[in-house]
Formats: sequence, C-alpha cells, structure tokens
Amino acid sequence: MRIAVIGTGTVGRTLGEGLAKVGHDVVVGTRDPARTRARDEWQAMSLSLGSYGEVGTGAELFVNATNGAASLEALQAVGEEALAGKVLIDISNALDHSAGFPPTLFVSNTDSLAEQLQRAFPRTKVVKAFNTTTAAVMVNPGAVGGGDTTIFVAGNDADARATVAGVATDLGWTDVMDLGDLTAARGLEMWLPLWLRLLMALDGPMFNIKVAR
Amino acid sequence: MRIAVIGTGTVGRTLGEGLAKVGHDVVVGTRDPARTRARDEWQAMSLSLGSYGEVGTGAELFVNATNGAASLEALQAVGEEALAGKVLIDISNALDHSAGFPPTLFVSNTDSLAEQLQRAFPRTKVVKAFNTTTAAVMVNPGAVGGGDTTIFVAGNDADARATVAGVATDLGWTDVMDLGDLTAARGLEMWLPLWLRLLMALDGPMFNIKVAR
Repeated sequence: MRIAVIGTGTVGRTLGEGLAKVGHDVVVGTRDPARTRARDEWQAMSLSLGSYGEVGTGAELFVNATNGAASLEALQAVGEEALAGKVLIDISNALDHSAGFPPTLFVSNTDSLAEQLQRAFPRTKVVKAFNTTTAAVMVNPGAVGGGDTTIFVAGNDADARATVAGVATDLGWTDVMDLGDLTAARGLEMWLPLWLRLLMALDGPMFNIKVAR
Repeated sequence: MRIAVIGTGTVGRTLGEGLAKVGHDVVVGTRDPARTRARDEWQAMSLSLGSYGEVGTGAELFVNATNGAASLEALQAVGEEALAGKVLIDISNALDHSAGFPPTLFVSNTDSLAEQLQRAFPRTKVVKAFNTTTAAVMVNPGAVGGGDTTIFVAGNDADARATVAGVATDLGWTDVMDLGDLTAARGLEMWLPLWLRLLMALDGPMFNIKVAR
C-alpha cells in the first residue's frame, strides 16, 4: 500500500522504516524535505521524503506521527482534499510538556485529540492506533513479552479499523483489539499518564501491555 | 492484620472476604450496620460489620472501597483521628456517571481522587492500589492470564507502599509494580476509561493487564 507518514521525528522515522520493511510504499511528509534530509538522523535513511503539499499524491493511507500539539497544523498543510476519503492512523498523543516531566494531557476525559482531528477532517476516516506503545515496539512487537502483547484500534468506520488492524498484522501484531468507535480514543490517550509512570519505574520504554482474558 | 474495609458494595464485600480468607481480621465499615446486614447480599455473609464511628478501633490498615464520589464523606465519618498514622489503601475510582455509560472522571490529569483524599487526611498514608482491575480479580489473580498479570501501588510513603504490596502478595499477586509517589495515582485512575472500553469489547470484567518487559 502507498502510505504517507506525516512527521519526521523518532515515531515517523521508525514507523516509516517498519512499514517499508514489510513491503509498503512509504513516503514521509515534512514541511521542507531538503532541510529534513540535512538532519543527521535523516542523511543515511533511504526513506523518501515529500513536502506536505505533495505527500498525499497517490497515498492510500496516512499516518499522523507528528507531535500531538502540532498535528492539526501539519494535517492542514497536507490538505483536507488530500485526506478526504482516506484512512488516517492517528498515533499522536496529547502531551502537554509546559509544566515539565511527566507531561499532562492537553485534551482528555470528555474529548480526545483523535476526535478533534476527526472533527477537523470530517471526510477522513480517523483510526486511533499504536499510540499506546513506544515506536520501537510498534514496528517490532516481538521485542517484548515474547511478541504476545496487545495493540488497539478505534475509529468510527469499521472498514477503516479493519484496514488498520491489517497494517498491525503486517507489522507482526497478533493481538489487535477492536475497541469500536472513536470515543475509545479517550481511553487510549488517557493511558499515557500510566505509560509514563511505567517508563519511569522501568527506566525505559521497552514494554507493552497484554490484555489477559 | 486487623483491616477495616470502608464500603459495603461489591468491591468492599469481595475484598473483605478475600482478605479474611487469607487470614486477616476484617471488619467492614458502614453507616448503619443493622440496615446493611438486612440487605439480601449481606444476610449470608460472615464478615463483621461496624459503624463508621467504631470501625477504626484497633484497625492497623484501612481500605477505601466506597464509590469515588462518596469517598471523602465516608472517610470523614470514619474520622481523621482514627485514620491518623494509618495506611489507607484507596481502591476507589473517580467515576462520573452523570452523562451515562461509559462514565467519565470527575478528577483527572493534573490531580487525582487519591491525592484529594491525601490532602483531606494529611496524617494518613494513602496508597492507591487495586483500582485497575475488577474485584473478583483483585482477590483472585489466578482467574486471568494464568495468574501472571500486574497490579500497582503508588503512595508518598515507601513503607506504606511495601505494606500494601505485602497485602497484594497475601492475595496471590506475583507482579506488584511500585510506581512511586501518589501523583502516579493520576495514571492509575486515568486507566479507567480504557478499562471501561475493554469491558465493553470483552463483554465482561474478567481481564487484567500484564506489563510485559
């Protein structure tokens, strides 16, 4: 599948490489491709880069891997028309770093970042997924728990959730839980404060949860 | 240990019975013991009941198993003096049912119910624990995941956290994670929205998470 990953940070790079490795045709969107390519961490990467304005061309699926606070602006630069009718996997988290570490959330409880994005792009099929674990585990579920941990999808369109569950399967996930409509993104995003405390207790992000039932 | 469980609902009854079964001396606190005993679900129970005013006598440890919205009032009825210097395991959740199911939280993100209780009872050692799973799993961790799932403790006093971890071990828990100070209760309480969506997806509460690392 032709996948446009929006965001050039650790999550965008790691997920872009992971998706390319399992056979997807990946392009990573950025404001200024030349400037991104000049960054140390991008010089040795074979991933294609495209400007926000061109990255959507031909893309069948989009991934929002930007910083949560910058997501709306980045996706607006990609364009409502380019995103119309497409599935958007929203990996972002609503982290508010203004009061130091650990961050709090800038939206939660009665709303979520994913729902905000869905309202901003009503013709796009937003699916919250992958935001519950670190990038290195997203693309390599075998890295923790013997490969038997859980990842989640939530979104208003059942076919879009199935598409994203398929992408997770491509990446090696064997336990993909479908949580239904996009209001479930509140729970997936509100997991972050506990994830952050686990990060602190375990002194690193290489962990994930298994829903045992 | 002499343990006073505050709250006569499913959580209080189940945890009270579970703690008694592993050898603790349990009394369950209620506003009106005669009225509680007259309830169908209490008539056949061998657990002792005591009024809020007397339940603290001799108790070494307290458990707040009341509805989150009623916790402050119930603990005030037990009394600040009775709770002073003691460990209080806070199992409650900050569920706001006013807008239907699933409930939202009435405190979250930059504060937690456990921290509110700690501020109200500054001489008490509040430890958030057990709120992340259903009562039947709290007292019987073997019921899910082959007994290998995770439970958490958070509180400002390290000895109190160790005491509560010991109570968890008494109940059969083998993976008790110490998350540090009571601000971690924000994460443990903000887990609830995802727990509720898992409850919906799995059509029941018999599940728990394992932190695989």
